[in-house]
Order: sequence, then C-alpha cells, then structure tokens
Amino acid sequence: MSPTTPPLARRLDGLQSSAIRDLLKLTARSDIISLAGGLPDEQLMPRDRIALAAESALTDRSRLQYTESAGWGPLREVLAARESARLGRAVHVEEVLVTHGSQQALSLLGEVLLDPGALVVVENPAYVGALQVFRAAGARIAAVPLDADGMRTDVLAELLDRGERPALVHTVSNFHNPRGVTMSPDRRRALAELAERHGFWVIEDDPYGELWFDQPSPSPVASYSANVIRLSSASKILAPTLRAGWMVAPSAVRRGVELLKQSADLCGSALTQQIVTDLLDDGDWLTAHVDEVRRIYGERAQALVGALRSRLGDRVVSTDASGGMFVWVDFADTTDTVELLPRAIERGVAYVPGSAFAVDGGYRNSMRLCFTTSDAGMLQEAVDRLTHAVGDQATAAAGFARSE
Amino acid sequence: MSPTTPPLARRLDGLQSSAIRDLLKLTARSDIISLAGGLPDEQLMPRDRIALAAESALTDRSRLQYTESAGWGPLREVLAARESARLGRAVHVEEVLVTHGSQQALSLLGEVLLDPGALVVVENPAYVGALQVFRAAGARIAAVPLDADGMRTDVLAELLDRGERPALVHTVSNFHNPRGVTMSPDRRRALAELAERHGFWVIEDDPYGELWFDQPSPSPVASYSANVIRLSSASKILAPTLRAGWMVAPSAVRRGVELLKQSADLCGSALTQQIVTDLLDDGDWLTAHVDEVRRIYGERAQALVGALRSRLGDRVVSTDASGGMFVWVDFADTTDTVELLPRAIERGVAYVPGSAFAVDGGYRNSMRLCFTTSDAGMLQEAVDRLTHAVGDQATAAAGFARSE
Repeated sequence: MSPTTPPLARRLDGLQSSAIRDLLKLTARSDIISLAGGLPDEQLMPRDRIALAAESALTDRSRLQYTESAGWGPLREVLAARESARLGRAVHVEEVLVTHGSQQALSLLGEVLLDPGALVVVENPAYVGALQVFRAAGARIAAVPLDADGMRTDVLAELLDRGERPALVHTVSNFHNPRGVTMSPDRRRALAELAERHGFWVIEDDPYGELWFDQPSPSPVASYSANVIRLSSASKILAPTLRAGWMVAPSAVRRGVELLKQSADLCGSALTQQIVTDLLDDGDWLTAHVDEVRRIYGERAQALVGALRSRLGDRVVSTDASGGMFVWVDFADTTDTVELLPRAIERGVAYVPGSAFAVDGGYRNSMRLCFTTSDAGMLQEAVDRLTHAVGDQATAAAGFARSE
Repeated sequence: MSPTTPPLARRLDGLQSSAIRDLLKLTARSDIISLAGGLPDEQLMPRDRIALAAESALTDRSRLQYTESAGWGPLREVLAARESARLGRAVHVEEVLVTHGSQQALSLLGEVLLDPGALVVVENPAYVGALQVFRAAGARIAAVPLDADGMRTDVLAELLDRGERPALVHTVSNFHNPRGVTMSPDRRRALAELAERHGFWVIEDDPYGELWFDQPSPSPVASYSANVIRLSSASKILAPTLRAGWMVAPSAVRRGVELLKQSADLCGSALTQQIVTDLLDDGDWLTAHVDEVRRIYGERAQALVGALRSRLGDRVVSTDASGGMFVWVDFADTTDTVELLPRAIERGVAYVPGSAFAVDGGYRNSMRLCFTTSDAGMLQEAVDRLTHAVGDQATAAAGFARSE
C-alpha cells in the first residue's frame, strides 16, 4: 500500500514552479538571445579573488566544521560595519544574521512573522520569490502599484485608511525586480511613518542597491524606522555560488529567525562565509570590483534602452535603468506580450511577459528585459529581433482581421 | 508604534534553542574535556583534498552562478550511482535531490508530507533535530523505544493494531544518535512491511552508515520498500562546511521538495557541490580516507567503552559502539545525570544528559558521550573525571541522607 499524500498533492497544486525558471529552460538554445533570465554575468564575477580567498580560508580547519546558526562570526562583524555605514547608525552584530541567500531570510521571516490569514502587502508587479513565500505562509495578499518613484505609498495609505491592518509590507526599494524603479526618499519616509503609525513590519529587500549607475541609491527605508527589516545579498555583487544573504533586524526577530534556521538547515558554510568575509573586507579591491560591474551593466542598460527607443519609439515606454539588472517595457498599444513570446522566440529573442509578475492578473502589455548577460551589440540585435517579432504579430493580427 | 508580533512571540515560546547547543557554549572552556558535542573531528577532515577540489572547481565559471534547485547535476549523478550500489537497484537521477545538509531535507519533508495534527512516530530517545522539525510542523508525536537491535518494531506494530495511523515514521537506522544502536536486518524488513501494509512513509535518516568499525552496516530499510525516503550527508565523512545532504525519494516527493526548496533558498552552491562531487567520485582516495576515519573513531570508541567498563563496572551499561559517533550509557543505579552534570563540569568533563533526547521525559539515568574529538588518553582521563564526579555525587547524597 502506497502512503497517502493528501498534503503533498495539495501543496503541489498550490505551488507552481516559477514561470521564469520554466522559461529559462526553454531559452537555453544557443540561437536565442535571452533577456529572460535574472542572472548576474558570471564573466564579471571575481573568480580569481574567490579562489585566493578559498585557499586562504582553508588554512584554518575550523572553517571545515559546523558553524553558528546565526552565521560565521567574522562575517557578521564585517556586515555590521557595512550596514552601519549604510544606515547611518551603529548596527550591532546581534542585529545581523547570515542566511543561505536572502531568499532564505524571506522564507524564515514568513514563518516567524505571519499567521495564516495575515495580510501582507506586496508591490505590483511583484518579486515572484517573495510572493511564493507569502502564499506558502497562507497570507492574504494585497497589492500596491509602483510608478517611477517606487511604491505608491498614497495607495498604501488609502488601504490603511479603509481599516486594513497588514502584518508586513514587502518592498524592493532599489532598482525593483521586475519594475526597474527606485523608491524616492519622500516615499521612503512616508512608508516608514505609516509603519510606525499603524505598527506593521516592512521588509526592505535590497539585493540591487549597490548596482547604481549614475548616483548612489537613496538612504535605505530602514534608516527611517526600527520597524524595517533589511535584507541584502552578495549574489549580485560577488557571486550567487557563495549563497550569502543577510538580514538586519531587531534582536527579537533575529532570534526567532535564528531558531528557525537551526531547524531549517542547522547552519551555513564557514568556508563560503569566510570567502565572503575576505572579499567584503578587502575595501580597495571591492570598490574597484563593484565599480567595474556598475560601469559595464550601466553601458549595457544604456544600449538596451537606446535600442528600444530608436527601434520601437512611441510604441513602448521603458524605464530609464538607473541601476540593477532589469528594464521594464510597457507597450503603448495593445501588444500582448504572452501572445508575442512564441513569435519572439521564433525570431531568436526571449523575455519574461509582465503577467508572470502580476499579483492578480494584468500587465499583459508589459515585459521584463534583463540586460546583464549580453553586450551592447547583442542587446541591439535582441531589440532588432524583438521589433521584427512585433511586426510579425501586427501582420498576423491584420491578416486575421481581414480574414474575419 | 512597534509592530505586533503575536506569531513571533508564540513561535519563540514553542521553540527552544537545542539543549545540546547551549551546553556546547558552557563547555568551551579549555580545562573541560567535552564529550557533549556531536561534531566530527576536524583534524580528520580532508582539508588538502578539499582545497585541491576547490581550485579545480573554480576553473569553470558556471560554478559561480545560481544552480538548479534540485542540485548540481554532476553531484546528483554521482549520488545516484552511489545509492544504486547501496540499495541494490538502479537509482535514477530524478529520484535524487541535494539539500543544504540533510537537516534541510527533513525540514522540507516536514512541510511536504505533514498536515498539522498528523501523527509522526519517532524513536525514543530521539534525534533532536528531527523532533524540532516535526513539532514545528504541528505534528502529533508518538515515541517507540529502541533496544540493542534498534527500533522496537513490535511496539510500532502494537500502536498500529490499536488503530493509530502515522503519516510517517522516522528512524536513524545506523549507529543511532543518541542511542548508538543499529537496526537489525529483521527489524528493517519488519518496518518496511508495516509501512507497506499500513501505507505510511518511512524517513530513513542515515548520516552515520559509512562510519562502521568492524562490519558494514546492513542493507538500508529503503532496500525493502518504495515507501522509504532515504537521507544521507557528506558532513560526517567529508566535512560539515560543504553543507551537502541528499535525499532519495519517489519522484512525486522529490518534486514537492524541489518546489519548496525554490521558495526556501532558491538553490545550493555549485562550488561546494562540485567539491563534494570531486571527492565522492575519487573512489580510491575516498575509500582510503573513510577507512582512516573509521579506524581512528573505532579506536576511540574502544578506548571509551573500555574505560567505562574498567572504571565504572557494573554501575553502568553502555552500548558497544560498533560505529558512528556516540556511546549511550545507562546507570544501573539511581544516578541522575542532570544532577550529576554540574559536578562533572567541576571535575572537568561534560556530556549530554539522556533527558535532552527524551520525547516525553525520562532517561534521567542516562547520558550520551561523543568519542570523535578526543584521543584515547583524553577519553580515559574523561572517564576518570566522570568516575570522580559520580563519587562526589554519592558522597554528597550520603551526607545529605545522614544530615536528614
């Protein structure tokens, strides 16, 4: 007799493999220029510096052993110093916890802070990894739209005025995935004030903040209120393989997450965490390295946005791409990006349709483009192919209209 | 206004930091011989081989990138081959999933397989990390005792005859933590038959199976039934810092765990997983390495058990320590190991009281001793100190009796 698996079957129903991941499988063909991924460029990752740090880390046998659930001590110290500079106050080591990528922090926070049925406010379009976590926690989801200045805090205020009481509000404050925008300083202050007035947590999810092109990102939301839990990661500035994310949170929350991490996976790797410590602590090298990543991503972003404007003109509105990894494109006409996708792939280019990030449907005329892994020439070629695909689509639609 | 944290407060009430971890903090003093830990000996970990593998892994930039949620492909292949040999059938790569230590597999399985209120059967005394997971999942826990042949499957059968219907049964089949014993082949067959007759899952948690001293561990429980999900780990044979555990499970379960892993932490590290691949795939080296660990742990186990028998004689019954990392000691008299602990620490030796592993209380006259990180001389000294502490305790009790 096979075991009964009602919880398994139900959970499989409720969980969908991320649309982005399924697409990545589809677009691995070498003849396709994929702007669909969400990966940093591995050619820009500091392989030699990581190899040197690995060799150095392995001179000490304690780095082979289990480590503390809250993270390798020296890494927590380096992170506390970095976050002190970022937040403009002395961040204590006790507030810092290292996670297996910042996704693990999100997931453990979902368990620590949310009862089933609790209200969670997310941005729309949303970071899919956060949506998965909040849905798995059984939360009720409310969506607040974004504009060029980030989260529409006025819409959040209206929701609060109607008596809604969120347990937490999630924001990707800098260079939003997928929407590309950055929350303005005024909105940051407004969000922090709402959090204090109404007593909710804010999760400020900030993996892209250091990838600014022209000017540094504004002071974090967390610099305005102790109600803000701040997450960041080494994946976008160093390498995802190091699986190092971190959280800065009040110590009661930090303690709750630490206890859950014991049960989730005991602890992280002292080896990879020591590598991250070494690289983050090597100030001059790090500055030069991140500057180089910024410069190259900035050129690529400019090439992509320039090509979109010159080839598609008034047919699209795209973000300016002032940092991060993504450009968001809204078609001004009725172009449906889900219907366009097979034609685009036929023409040799891939993207993620906006609807993949929609909280409750919508964004059918939008797409997310990732500019990190293609050079300027490839990005121009990708936009050419996309323009042809849009043409194909228009021709087919016209043909369909004629044949009706 | 500070955020309300009812779920956080409730969860902190329900979760206790592992008693073992708190003890480890207490016994870090250099004048204490600690048999309280549960760590493999870092002096026996293959540091140089790991350094070589790290260097080699970093020649390929793909190992810096995000990898698949199910694990680095080459590692899954190596594991499928190893598990095929262990299980005596062709294990397909699709059945294998790599986790961040086998604790992560336990934790994700708790989410995939258990509804709140589901019945979980554990062994008593229990592996604390599993208890934490099942309690966090809101499971109802039933305990089945162990004897020298492992889980008392007759007691499990009685429980089933009374109409209890567990969703899963958890067993540490080889060299049990903390109880030291190994489940006999007959009991393995009996457990598998019960699982098939009554349709429950068995989680066979096997981190110690390769650490046998005189003869290889029996065929896994998983070789008797497809209802058995098998977990193992590289932590005890290579190094915990690699954070490599793995699961062999029917593909529906594997798929459920994979989807939850996406939400839990996206994926593991291609760097550390490639290091594990390299080492597990280096057959001659691996055999020689594991043989050496076995030989040294075997000598230590023998020294510990010998000292216990020669110094404490009939006052204690201890396991034979035929493998793994632990010896379990039952006092034949009324010695209370919780009360003994402060005296033992005063004498310069530490252990974990049996009650720390008890499912519903009990084991007050038992203790777990870990022999992995002390050489024979230190282990003899530790038992001397323990014997003195037992003497102190008896003297104090007699004094107390006289003064009454």
